[in-house]
Amino acid sequence: MRILTGIQASGRPHLGNVLGAIRPAIELSKNPANESFLFIADLHTLTSLKDGKQLRENTYAIAAAWLACGFDADKNFFYRQSKLAGYHTELMWYLSCFTPFPMLANGHSFKEKSEKLANVNAGLFTYPVLQAADIMLYDAHLVPVGRDQRQHLEMTRDLGGAFNNQYGENTLVIPEAKIDETVMVIPGTDGQKMSKSYGNYIDIFLDEKELLKSVKKIVTDATPLEEPKNPETDNVFKLYSLVATKDEIEEMKANYLAGGYGYGHAKQALHQVLVREFAKERELFNYYMNNTNELEQKLEEGEAKAAIIAKATMERVREKMNF
Amino acid sequence: MRILTGIQASGRPHLGNVLGAIRPAIELSKNPANESFLFIADLHTLTSLKDGKQLRENTYAIAAAWLACGFDADKNFFYRQSKLAGYHTELMWYLSCFTPFPMLANGHSFKEKSEKLANVNAGLFTYPVLQAADIMLYDAHLVPVGRDQRQHLEMTRDLGGAFNNQYGENTLVIPEAKIDETVMVIPGTDGQKMSKSYGNYIDIFLDEKELLKSVKKIVTDATPLEEPKNPETDNVFKLYSLVATKDEIEEMKANYLAGGYGYGHAKQALHQVLVREFAKERELFNYYMNNTNELEQKLEEGEAKAAIIAKATMERVREKMNF
Repeated sequence: MRILTGIQASGRPHLGNVLGAIRPAIELSKNPANESFLFIADLHTLTSLKDGKQLRENTYAIAAAWLACGFDADKNFFYRQSKLAGYHTELMWYLSCFTPFPMLANGHSFKEKSEKLANVNAGLFTYPVLQAADIMLYDAHLVPVGRDQRQHLEMTRDLGGAFNNQYGENTLVIPEAKIDETVMVIPGTDGQKMSKSYGNYIDIFLDEKELLKSVKKIVTDATPLEEPKNPETDNVFKLYSLVATKDEIEEMKANYLAGGYGYGHAKQALHQVLVREFAKERELFNYYMNNTNELEQKLEEGEAKAAIIAKATMERVREKMNF
Repeated sequence: MRILTGIQASGRPHLGNVLGAIRPAIELSKNPANESFLFIADLHTLTSLKDGKQLRENTYAIAAAWLACGFDADKNFFYRQSKLAGYHTELMWYLSCFTPFPMLANGHSFKEKSEKLANVNAGLFTYPVLQAADIMLYDAHLVPVGRDQRQHLEMTRDLGGAFNNQYGENTLVIPEAKIDETVMVIPGTDGQKMSKSYGNYIDIFLDEKELLKSVKKIVTDATPLEEPKNPETDNVFKLYSLVATKDEIEEMKANYLAGGYGYGHAKQALHQVLVREFAKERELFNYYMNNTNELEQKLEEGEAKAAIIAKATMERVREKMNF
């Protein structure tokens, strides 16, 4: 089974990404029956970020984070979309010619943006078509998506169907969505879903001092130190519960209920657990960020492997199109 | 000076194309100071024509017509866009990220179609961005355009400017439009501009009998044979004036004014002149259509030459983008 995941290169992965996306994807990729296609979607990122220096830094940080979290790039496929841009965009163009304008105009991602059309670029408007190409270029069978991406996967299936209808049933492989309804929502420092765009994220790859600073920013209520606290509603406790051991969680819960235990204590404890639980990841991340030549090498190897698949698909597609 | 022209692969070139576009472009390409980039825009054609067999036939007919009319494919660049699709579409994607949505939505070619949006595909909506890539991929300096394409050339200049503003002034070459206001308008069989979409064209590459049939379809008024006729308003005379010699034109004019000379006579004369004036072109066209392997070879040679330029441009672009 070919499972495909694209990752935006919009910034360094944070705790929410690691727990909610990276770890589950790596689990899936460990199944010997699966081949995982994991790519850094830097062509997509270009719709919002034009600065080449920043884009490269983000790319390295993402590659380093996935490798640090245990992604096996040798068994699987690990590549930058931009290094195979010709294949992705050529298939995108073919699919564009099968994409009804209203399909894109009525897509929710465009509708959200349509109030300020002058700020929407054509890349942003057409990116679901590039996504369809990203997926079908590698004959992917399964695409794990959150609920918000469900519509785009449906578009991919529709476009693949229309294309096959014209050029023959075996031209493109139609993927299935793997919609995980139980996906973990990781709270951010303000209690909302942790997200780069909300600015409420914890970057677990920061050095210890900086990490402590960002943990200290977690929003808590005004209950005085000596009084009992409600662990169910507190953001520090929620995050602690996601990373600490069972015993540690029980202990903190007891401390909360007993009173005389302040949020400052809880934050110190969370910081310690983060540093401990991600010790290996933090070390490896730093190693790769200080040795980007090794990242380059891993990615280039992955790109050479991915190119073989992409080339074969495009040869098949062009032949069916009589090009 | 690099001059670039793209030709839609939507059908066989007709008399209007030959006189209004092919011959002037070939004249321009003969200037030793110019390099002409002439490409069959089959990626664009895909927005309206999906049938691969038809697309290939059209492609061969266009290539055969240009070569038959004297285009020197060895001195210049002669290629199918689809054979360099990866380069064209990659640059298109980059430019898409610099294309404000309203620029496309307000473009006249889209506005014309926006009444039946369900029939508009995303390729049709975004094709001015592909055009911009087609041009700037080859560092073209000059693009001969009709008035209807003026807006698209302005878009190309705007996109190139925005791109260079982000990545450095020497990233893309900004082309100039060469707007020929004196462009010949060739009347069709019904007196309107000759156009494939109006169905009023004369295909000069038909065999003699078929050619005569289509000449006979030219619309004339009901003036009886014996009466004098007005050459200024007659479609047969107008077309005759574009291909016959000066003496022949004067002679026909005299016949019209004298009376006793019918439109049937004029049509026979036009047919004879077409067969005579395009004798070499008709022969060569048939030769190439019966020897498509030679067409393939010419095109493949042109594609190999064009690829060198396209690759160099994309390497420069990617380096500036820090990809």
